[in-house]
Amino acid sequence: MLLSKTILALDKVLPIKTLKGIRDYIPKVKFSYITLLDGGLEYLKEVYKLGWEEVIFDLKLADIDSTMVGIVSRLTSFSDSFISHSFIGFEGALDDLSSYLLKEGKGLYLVLSMSHKGWNDSFYPYLKDVAKRVNPKGFVVGATKPEMIKVVRNDFPEKIIISPGVGVQGALFGDALCNGADYEIVGRSIYSSTDPVKTARELVAKQEVRINECKEVSENRK
Amino acid sequence: MLLSKTILALDKVLPIKTLKGIRDYIPKVKFSYITLLDGGLEYLKEVYKLGWEEVIFDLKLADIDSTMVGIVSRLTSFSDSFISHSFIGFEGALDDLSSYLLKEGKGLYLVLSMSHKGWNDSFYPYLKDVAKRVNPKGFVVGATKPEMIKVVRNDFPEKIIISPGVGVQGALFGDALCNGADYEIVGRSIYSSTDPVKTARELVAKQEVRINECKEVSENRK
Repeated sequence: MLLSKTILALDKVLPIKTLKGIRDYIPKVKFSYITLLDGGLEYLKEVYKLGWEEVIFDLKLADIDSTMVGIVSRLTSFSDSFISHSFIGFEGALDDLSSYLLKEGKGLYLVLSMSHKGWNDSFYPYLKDVAKRVNPKGFVVGATKPEMIKVVRNDFPEKIIISPGVGVQGALFGDALCNGADYEIVGRSIYSSTDPVKTARELVAKQEVRINECKEVSENRK
Repeated sequence: MLLSKTILALDKVLPIKTLKGIRDYIPKVKFSYITLLDGGLEYLKEVYKLGWEEVIFDLKLADIDSTMVGIVSRLTSFSDSFISHSFIGFEGALDDLSSYLLKEGKGLYLVLSMSHKGWNDSFYPYLKDVAKRVNPKGFVVGATKPEMIKVVRNDFPEKIIISPGVGVQGALFGDALCNGADYEIVGRSIYSSTDPVKTARELVAKQEVRINECKEVSENRK
């Protein structure tokens, strides 16, 4: 069994048996509202029980304090971490969310750069300031933005970077890791496959090859 | 019966009977993920059937195109409109969301300024550009930001402005309307009241008084 540096973006209700198979290769899972709407809370609880290293609710939270705390407080019993936007700012938003999650022993990842073309990275200096005030567990930086991964890695050497946009969205397996991310988030490539377990296994192998290719770079970083 | 320029932010599962009473005074309702998590889709469908002028899903969407379309496509059968952030940009995000909603005959409101203290309005020129490309039904501008309501009203004279932050968050009933908003969004003041129907009725009266006070300003705007 080879555990990859991968997070499964579970945006489709896969059978629990299939997820058990994927779990042998992929240590972490990320839920979206799509999985919640299609599977319901009971399904998410079943998936949580499979014993992942980390279960992340990727709700792209971007509301006022009371609304965000209201949402996460209903989900903390079967989650380890949550993803929120940073652009909403600190006072009246991320201040209360981050202190609530800290109190509950849950992690917070802040979005610093998204993977799609229309995302505007010129606001990064502001988002970085917000991030420093929040001091979260980690950050979300799109794999399609290699330069942004390097910038965030440099600005926050101690933080975990998780990186979506690998596979269908265009980035190659392993590239985000080579650029400084800690985990790559893969969704459609796996859950839309006719054999998701086999695809997960192959993906891990591809990632391993790519990581070995850039090992020297990674070593220099440490 | 006096229908106000108010939208009920239903962040609490109120009895259907109570909502029928509120419906006599308040023409529109807005759901959040909190109502969805607490009441489930069946509850939201029941509320939808009460015959509001407009049912808005306030999910503060802020994701890539496929995820946002995936979410709203599961809710369009009992909704009229959705609220999305503008900050995420056009290509790969709001382009697909807005064309999907247009095709489905559903409305889209973009957040241009939030009601909490930490929101940074210095990004407004960028958000305005995004908004012009999207050309949505309307905008969300916090009632706690009277200057921003005036700016957005001036930049988009034809668009609907809906305004949260009235009541518990600090803005006075009617003020956002006086500043140029078309609807005020009221949540906690009503749903946390011991008699929500009575509170709704009183609120409408207060709003009416305030609107009459500033009628001259409104008339000049038209």
